[in-house]
Amino acid sequence: MFKVEFVPSGSVTTPRGFRAGATCAGIKKKEAPDLGILASEASCVATGLFTANRIKAAPVVLSQRRIAGGKASGVVVNAGCANACTGEQGLMDAAEMTSLAAEIIGVPAEEVLVASTGVIGQLLPMARIREGMKKVAFTLDGGNDLARAIMTTDTVPKAAAVKMEGADFTIGGICKGSGMIHPSLATFLCFLTTDAAVDKDFLKQALRQAADVSFNMVSVDGDTSTNDTLLFLTNGLAGNEPITKKSRLAEAFQQALNHLCIHLAKLIARDGEGATHRIEVTVSGAPNVFAARLAARTIVSSSLVKSAVHGADPNWGRIVAALGRSGVEVEEKKIDLYLGNVCLLKDGRPVPFDHDEAVRVLLKDEVPIAVNLNMGIGTATAWGCDLSEEYVTINSAYTT
Amino acid sequence: MFKVEFVPSGSVTTPRGFRAGATCAGIKKKEAPDLGILASEASCVATGLFTANRIKAAPVVLSQRRIAGGKASGVVVNAGCANACTGEQGLMDAAEMTSLAAEIIGVPAEEVLVASTGVIGQLLPMARIREGMKKVAFTLDGGNDLARAIMTTDTVPKAAAVKMEGADFTIGGICKGSGMIHPSLATFLCFLTTDAAVDKDFLKQALRQAADVSFNMVSVDGDTSTNDTLLFLTNGLAGNEPITKKSRLAEAFQQALNHLCIHLAKLIARDGEGATHRIEVTVSGAPNVFAARLAARTIVSSSLVKSAVHGADPNWGRIVAALGRSGVEVEEKKIDLYLGNVCLLKDGRPVPFDHDEAVRVLLKDEVPIAVNLNMGIGTATAWGCDLSEEYVTINSAYTT
Repeated sequence: MFKVEFVPSGSVTTPRGFRAGATCAGIKKKEAPDLGILASEASCVATGLFTANRIKAAPVVLSQRRIAGGKASGVVVNAGCANACTGEQGLMDAAEMTSLAAEIIGVPAEEVLVASTGVIGQLLPMARIREGMKKVAFTLDGGNDLARAIMTTDTVPKAAAVKMEGADFTIGGICKGSGMIHPSLATFLCFLTTDAAVDKDFLKQALRQAADVSFNMVSVDGDTSTNDTLLFLTNGLAGNEPITKKSRLAEAFQQALNHLCIHLAKLIARDGEGATHRIEVTVSGAPNVFAARLAARTIVSSSLVKSAVHGADPNWGRIVAALGRSGVEVEEKKIDLYLGNVCLLKDGRPVPFDHDEAVRVLLKDEVPIAVNLNMGIGTATAWGCDLSEEYVTINSAYTT
Repeated sequence: MFKVEFVPSGSVTTPRGFRAGATCAGIKKKEAPDLGILASEASCVATGLFTANRIKAAPVVLSQRRIAGGKASGVVVNAGCANACTGEQGLMDAAEMTSLAAEIIGVPAEEVLVASTGVIGQLLPMARIREGMKKVAFTLDGGNDLARAIMTTDTVPKAAAVKMEGADFTIGGICKGSGMIHPSLATFLCFLTTDAAVDKDFLKQALRQAADVSFNMVSVDGDTSTNDTLLFLTNGLAGNEPITKKSRLAEAFQQALNHLCIHLAKLIARDGEGATHRIEVTVSGAPNVFAARLAARTIVSSSLVKSAVHGADPNWGRIVAALGRSGVEVEEKKIDLYLGNVCLLKDGRPVPFDHDEAVRVLLKDEVPIAVNLNMGIGTATAWGCDLSEEYVTINSAYTT
């Protein structure tokens, strides 16, 4: 095991050679940062993961095409308008955004990626973006500024960076996302950077693995917004031999990356629209890890489970019902269920439990639910949040 | 086309030879009808559809086993306790319920089916059920009494019956279900009766077909509670030749059954917990009917679409995003989208629309959303309801 440590106030600009800046361009209805750039001094080996939605926003189409070459030098991003369902004009606007940013960074437009979040079906206000772009200034704390510029209904910016004992690189990240009742439709954006040199194939595989145990456990796979984008830029300024699958550093790198991504994923879960509690569901004893993931995600995204947590109501039947409809192979007689340390179900049979103690668990900031299927060795953890009246209020008047 | 007519105040006791009754047995926390019996004078050809949840409540296990023989004479049902996750004791209790009801009806217990709805993980209060059963009295309006006895968070009892011009039979039904934000976890119960004589194989096929265009379009397939139960009893007292696939009456029967089931399904959609509007989503031009159904259901069950309808916010991007994540094959450039008569998207391009007119459509009792994929001839309609703050309030304190 390697020791992973957080860098205080870390972000995407913590690794060497990354700069960032943001500005208020007037894309959002309220005066707030809504346009920004992330840039690397040196050209990066890059990879990304994108929405599985069949309707892909213009910036997704463009970034996906550009990153196929595995090379990038920067990212331009805006909030307030998703540039989705905007046809040819949307694609031209996305391309223009990258051209404008490329001029500032001083690289070819083809090396700039783009992401957008906000309302679907509206064209980007390009005049404002052209003006705003001129005001983007790179600062020492630029990563955190950028984290603020990608917020929509998020209540806090989300940024972090990690370093490893015995390794001379750091990995940084910023992300946004909330609306966790249907993680499907809240746009998820995440940008990761590192100064480590990483082999292109290993990078791709490492990002997929990290996403599977972190973001995909809050933002359900294949059930994503039109704009979901996860980008990872590696500029190699740490000067190490490029890390491959067989490198001594491979495991350390994967571990640090997982650690950072899980941390960011939990920040997203906690910041669900109107949420007052975080829910952590661990499923163990599943036939395999995929079954464990599916079961954990189904439970954590059940509106009835979420409502029960919000009301501190130990109505555990809803957990079992969600498990049952997840499609995962279960044997009722083998199921154990715990709320914190309170056992509710043992070998599929209800156990008399201390109601007050169960309510105390539900009143905690983080509510741990553990299910053991006693069928195999598959284990997974998923994160979500409770469902409050506030969620509905937020979402019933989003564009008005 | 045959002419289908509703029978005023119709229910499961409208067809000849069916009786029903209900009582307050004290299973629900509040004094309300919660136990009842449906009985036929003559032994019935019967069929049923049951929850796809891997965790099946005891009454589901028992009824599924008994109906395999295709014969039944009655149904006993309770609300207030689901008798789910109750192990061997639960199965014994379910069996005892049928024995008690069988004595009253005067048939073997093996001919009595059973259904339960309510809280999961609690044993049935059998002492109260034994006492309550003695008080069940069959009345002329028994079907409507029974409809009230199966209510949980439903705000109105749901019952109807239809007859056809030129055919001497009626079909009646009662049902319950609400909590439509996740149709998955609201128990759906429905009992159908007819005095028509119907061939066992045709009956099975006809019920599946009717369910596919009605209940399955509000209560998503494979995503159901532990207790979902749909039963159809046919006693043949109309004296017709048993209807088979090739009968002259087959089409009329199917049409009447579909009509009744769609009517009952819409009553369920309208009565969603805390709902103030019904949403009707029609998807046409899909590659096939299965794709159309999947797309329509995904849109109607999107929490963000539901919240937008609640807030009368014409944020149509959410409809397109839900369509995209449904997994159905779409081409963005071909999509047309209408809110009532207001065109929002034509050939995948946003159309300038009258905002006030769109808001007027959203403020109607029933909000019609129409999507044409322009890919093929698959068409389907799904029903749901808006998502209100009230939903969360109801579900955050269900057992407390």
